[in-house]
Amino acid sequence: MVVLDLVGIFVFAISGALVAVRRDLDIFGVLVLAGTTGLGGGFLRDVLIGAAPPTALADWRYLMVPVGAGLVTFAFHGAVGRVERLITVFDAFGLALFCVTGSLKALNYGLDPVPAALLGMVTAIGGGIARDLLAGRVPEVFRGELYATPALAGATVVVVLDLLDQPTLVMAAAGAGVCLVWRLLALRLHWRAPMPAGPANV
Amino acid sequence: MVVLDLVGIFVFAISGALVAVRRDLDIFGVLVLAGTTGLGGGFLRDVLIGAAPPTALADWRYLMVPVGAGLVTFAFHGAVGRVERLITVFDAFGLALFCVTGSLKALNYGLDPVPAALLGMVTAIGGGIARDLLAGRVPEVFRGELYATPALAGATVVVVLDLLDQPTLVMAAAGAGVCLVWRLLALRLHWRAPMPAGPANV
Amino acid sequence: MVVLDLVGIFVFAISGALVAVRRDLDIFGVLVLAGTTGLGGGFLRDVLIGAAPPTALADWRYLMVPVGAGLVTFAFHGAVGRVERLITVFDAFGLALFCVTGSLKALNYGLDPVPAALLGMVTAIGGGIARDLLAGRVPEVFRGELYATPALAGATVVVVLDLLDQPTLVMAAAGAGVCLVWRLLALRLHWRAPMPAGPANV
Repeated sequence: MVVLDLVGIFVFAISGALVAVRRDLDIFGVLVLAGTTGLGGGFLRDVLIGAAPPTALADWRYLMVPVGAGLVTFAFHGAVGRVERLITVFDAFGLALFCVTGSLKALNYGLDPVPAALLGMVTAIGGGIARDLLAGRVPEVFRGELYATPALAGATVVVVLDLLDQPTLVMAAAGAGVCLVWRLLALRLHWRAPMPAGPANV
Repeated sequence: MVVLDLVGIFVFAISGALVAVRRDLDIFGVLVLAGTTGLGGGFLRDVLIGAAPPTALADWRYLMVPVGAGLVTFAFHGAVGRVERLITVFDAFGLALFCVTGSLKALNYGLDPVPAALLGMVTAIGGGIARDLLAGRVPEVFRGELYATPALAGATVVVVLDLLDQPTLVMAAAGAGVCLVWRLLALRLHWRAPMPAGPANV
Repeated sequence: MVVLDLVGIFVFAISGALVAVRRDLDIFGVLVLAGTTGLGGGFLRDVLIGAAPPTALADWRYLMVPVGAGLVTFAFHGAVGRVERLITVFDAFGLALFCVTGSLKALNYGLDPVPAALLGMVTAIGGGIARDLLAGRVPEVFRGELYATPALAGATVVVVLDLLDQPTLVMAAAGAGVCLVWRLLALRLHWRAPMPAGPANV
């Protein structure tokens, strides 16, 4: 389980480091954006449910993974950028994983189903939002990219199966599966989130 | 009390959703900005005073209100935009309400008067600041709009009356009244906050 | 100790207020940026380690110092701007102080060495990052300025000396000294953080 978690953090951290390189930030900016993207969603979840200190601060391996991802991307950003399509696919695995672990942890802390599903989504997408804020751009996830919906769907599956008293493994597999398939289909078929109709009345 | 709270959240959420539509965000961005604007101030207050999980995560009605406001604004943003002046007046009620509930909750958690007044203001204006950050613009409340001062004034009234051992109802009515009148006068008479004098020495 | 802390907050708050004046914010924006820059790093640390409410909310003197710094800068920003080089030197003292107090507090809360060093750095640079986010610009600390590295170095010294069971005073003096000398040398000799090599592959 921890290994899966670390893989998810690594992939997210690479996406953060790539954004930093492209915004012309220095090595420190690359490391911070790697860390924020990889760990930010979990931090946000843990602060909101009152689980202090967050897991990532209690276990140094969680901190080393984004540092490694950041250094690799800093040194070889050309090569990393060329396999970006592949990274997007791995990123979908990270998304599926985090929406499951996030909603499970929120349920464990006694949250009701609706907030638990929401926190699953926040865990999955919070790091990317923090990355974009620090990089000075409007979060990508608000601009038509179908990214949050699969995470919310996966987290909802977890929560519903919890209400039906299913075992954790079933909840995790079904939730991650729904999120992953949805996200990969959205990537493959270029699904976009709906935009407001008509001109904005300013 | 809860009904008043939900009305305040609804009005704030509509202002967040309108900003999202005007920034050309997708439906997910509209919902997130609605939620952030409506609930962000309370989240910030609860995280700072250590009241985890925040009320809004422990009660699903608090989450449904901004979702409803976001969907309504997404579908009918033209009509909503046309009654924006009216929304600004309702928003003043939300401001008055939140500065009171925020400072009362901080006092209940044992904070001293000065921090409690400050947290009342943070509760009232925090959601709007988070909205503007996510939408990629400098918070409006820093740009001359007389919005934070009434909230701080209302929260200060609450705290002072608490020091004088007045009953909660009196504190709430007086604090909300001061904030509301001040804010509506500022809107009506176009009062602006003072700007630095002279050119900035860069 | 508290006096040193308040001096550090004062200097950080002045840098925040100067940014606000230069971004043409109103008096409220000046005060909020002063407060955020002076206290933001400590808030972030306290929220992450679960020390609620943060010190700065439990002691009103901590809130009055940035208010004072903000008002002074608002009124005399021309004069303050002219001594900015001097402020940068004082700012290095604040940085050295905060990386030490941050890592010491994290160790006191039982965090492991690696997270404790990281939190020392976060305490020292978090306020400046929050200032830049609120002012709508990419954090300066990511743009080549050698600012975070000295803070991380100082916090690391503290943590290593703690592992060697040295007394607190030795830890504090050595950590602050390393951070201060490094930062002042970086300023004097125009050291810059490494940037990614070659063009970014977008």
